[in-house]
Amino acid sequence: MALYVQKYGGTSVGTADRIKAVAKRVVATREAGDDVCVVVSAMGDSTDDLIDLASQVSKNPPGREMDMLLTAGERISMALLAMAIHELGHVAVSFTGSQAGIITTTEHGRAKITEVRAHRIKEALAEGQIVIVAGFQGVSSETLDVTTLGRGGSDTTAVAIAAALEADRCDIFTDVDGVYTADPRIVPDARLLRRVSYEEMLEMAASGARVLMSRSVEYGRNYGVAIRVASSFTEDPGTLITEADEAMEKAIISGVTHDTSEAKVVVHGVPDRPGVAARLFREVAQRGVNVDMIVQNVSTAGVTDISFTVPRDDIERSREILAPLIIEIAAKGVEFDSGIAKVSLVGAGMKSHPGVAAEMFAALSDAGVNIEMISTSTIRISCIIREADVERAVRAVHAAFPATPEVVDV
Amino acid sequence: MALYVQKYGGTSVGTADRIKAVAKRVVATREAGDDVCVVVSAMGDSTDDLIDLASQVSKNPPGREMDMLLTAGERISMALLAMAIHELGHVAVSFTGSQAGIITTTEHGRAKITEVRAHRIKEALAEGQIVIVAGFQGVSSETLDVTTLGRGGSDTTAVAIAAALEADRCDIFTDVDGVYTADPRIVPDARLLRRVSYEEMLEMAASGARVLMSRSVEYGRNYGVAIRVASSFTEDPGTLITEADEAMEKAIISGVTHDTSEAKVVVHGVPDRPGVAARLFREVAQRGVNVDMIVQNVSTAGVTDISFTVPRDDIERSREILAPLIIEIAAKGVEFDSGIAKVSLVGAGMKSHPGVAAEMFAALSDAGVNIEMISTSTIRISCIIREADVERAVRAVHAAFPATPEVVDV
Repeated sequence: MALYVQKYGGTSVGTADRIKAVAKRVVATREAGDDVCVVVSAMGDSTDDLIDLASQVSKNPPGREMDMLLTAGERISMALLAMAIHELGHVAVSFTGSQAGIITTTEHGRAKITEVRAHRIKEALAEGQIVIVAGFQGVSSETLDVTTLGRGGSDTTAVAIAAALEADRCDIFTDVDGVYTADPRIVPDARLLRRVSYEEMLEMAASGARVLMSRSVEYGRNYGVAIRVASSFTEDPGTLITEADEAMEKAIISGVTHDTSEAKVVVHGVPDRPGVAARLFREVAQRGVNVDMIVQNVSTAGVTDISFTVPRDDIERSREILAPLIIEIAAKGVEFDSGIAKVSLVGAGMKSHPGVAAEMFAALSDAGVNIEMISTSTIRISCIIREADVERAVRAVHAAFPATPEVVDV
Repeated sequence: MALYVQKYGGTSVGTADRIKAVAKRVVATREAGDDVCVVVSAMGDSTDDLIDLASQVSKNPPGREMDMLLTAGERISMALLAMAIHELGHVAVSFTGSQAGIITTTEHGRAKITEVRAHRIKEALAEGQIVIVAGFQGVSSETLDVTTLGRGGSDTTAVAIAAALEADRCDIFTDVDGVYTADPRIVPDARLLRRVSYEEMLEMAASGARVLMSRSVEYGRNYGVAIRVASSFTEDPGTLITEADEAMEKAIISGVTHDTSEAKVVVHGVPDRPGVAARLFREVAQRGVNVDMIVQNVSTAGVTDISFTVPRDDIERSREILAPLIIEIAAKGVEFDSGIAKVSLVGAGMKSHPGVAAEMFAALSDAGVNIEMISTSTIRISCIIREADVERAVRAVHAAFPATPEVVDV
């Protein structure tokens, strides 16, 4: 008898009929003889509806009350799922984040799980019950207030519970079939990855693949939880995310990702003396702007240009932060450009295949795409290009690197 | 500095605009220098919407999960109200029933408050915060599961909190102006009662006045909480419910109430021997049917008729319970009649005014209304009549008993 954690996202439980369909899937697992702990998100757009209600009564709602409001969403979906499972003749019990022992920090809206005190879940499972836990929410051990984990938090809840229960696998059921070698809307012959390593998945998530949030993958890697991403609408096995193994290493690339949510910032004429870059990025980070790629050229005549990317939503904020800083560090000026895109190539095989970067640059060049910035990790190469070129770039890079048949769907 | 508990019902917080209006009222009380603890119901029809969702996934949802589902409603309204108060520059904090220390029995859907552990509320009030508590909900001390108190439960929450905090008054804000001498839709010259005793209010609630549930009035009487019922849409002071005093005693009647939710059951030819009535009513009560009026005629030739009223919704259930009982006790038969209404006259002054009953019967007779059953308490007289006669009966009885000017609005 195995123990599975199954997470169902908002689209998967978007209507009463969808909830009944999910109940059938859960019961099928139980009837196959295995224990199930289910983690659910709020129904469909209900979180957005609640956010809209909040905006009607307050321009700047306090985080504690926002979390109180939003946690109503999973409460509804989890209770309905428990009822639908009862209707199928099985015993199910729903737990809020607090009841499930999801202990978090106190940062409302972006709390981090610090501990899972799973005794109530374990007792219910031991009694043969199907346990349903509210995703996305927890309770602060410091204030005893209800918290939320931020967007994608339900995946993290599921992986954290799987770790605490030492579950055999954490299944993330969603509205896509799994992880693809590229976005199928852009690359029609993109293939479904059957297996991918935590490291590759982390790089893919960080560089634009939206199927899983980095945080849940990190949690899975840290606790060795096998994660499967699959569709809640089909029986397809989807993508398994585990430790890297030989078959995966053989594949040069796992996928091509892209991201059009960032903007480029170039600070011109920065005096080339120690501490200037640190001053710049410490200030930006402390004020909550997430800097992604940073590129600094070799200096000429004692001055250099520093380029970096920030989320587009933070352009105004960045402008406010940088204006006084430019004067303070005696730089020449600053330039913002939101017309960019990032294309990344991710693959554990890169480590043992020198020349991948050169091939990627050649593929882009052959497609007539100009590269503005480059950044690499051991298993990822990212290029900043014009946003208008992004689809052409993704197709060109994807075509240049055929994936290995053992790892991807053929 | 006084401490007020203010309860706002579903209509009062039915939209974002209504929540902003309530926030202004709460803040006005706070700015007048008093402490406020607010109890809120779920927004407008949201509870019915949740019940509808449940019915779509389950024919017979488990009570625990139903309570988990329904408690999402107040969570939404209370968080929104806290935000709206923040927006007006005051600090507000919302607590679920569990966080507020509302300890209940475990009967899901109709739990009873056993204790209010109000330390979290007290601490927040001591810090100068406006406290908002979810009505209608609590937590079972036995199972640690979330419970609901049943319809009208938010009033009970408010009165229980007022008792625990030793508040100066519990204000129940609703969509009516207060307690009237009769239903103003039937009696256009019905007057608003300025003051009414707990006992009268209890009789009025039990006999059809829908403005307050009996349970909250009983709680108020037991703990000596002054309750005020007023409109959340106006500044009118409404009706104050307190201990009876001399002015109240002077009034012969406080009001005329009516109830069309009951049905009459007549068991014919019951053998007149000890224990038969007990056997009948014990069985009915044990199976959860609430019997209201019971009338037994003097027996003739060793048999008698026993009549009683039950909620109309329980007719089918009563039929099932009574069918075998009729055979067991060797009665002649049973008859059900749902075309009845109950008209009641309530007033503490009755105790010292003999003849009130006779005057009521005369008023009904003059109006051509036939009386089928009669039942009395020390401060109430109830008559069962034809449902078709109910409006005429209420007007006739109301006209026969002018109320005392000190107690009612003139």
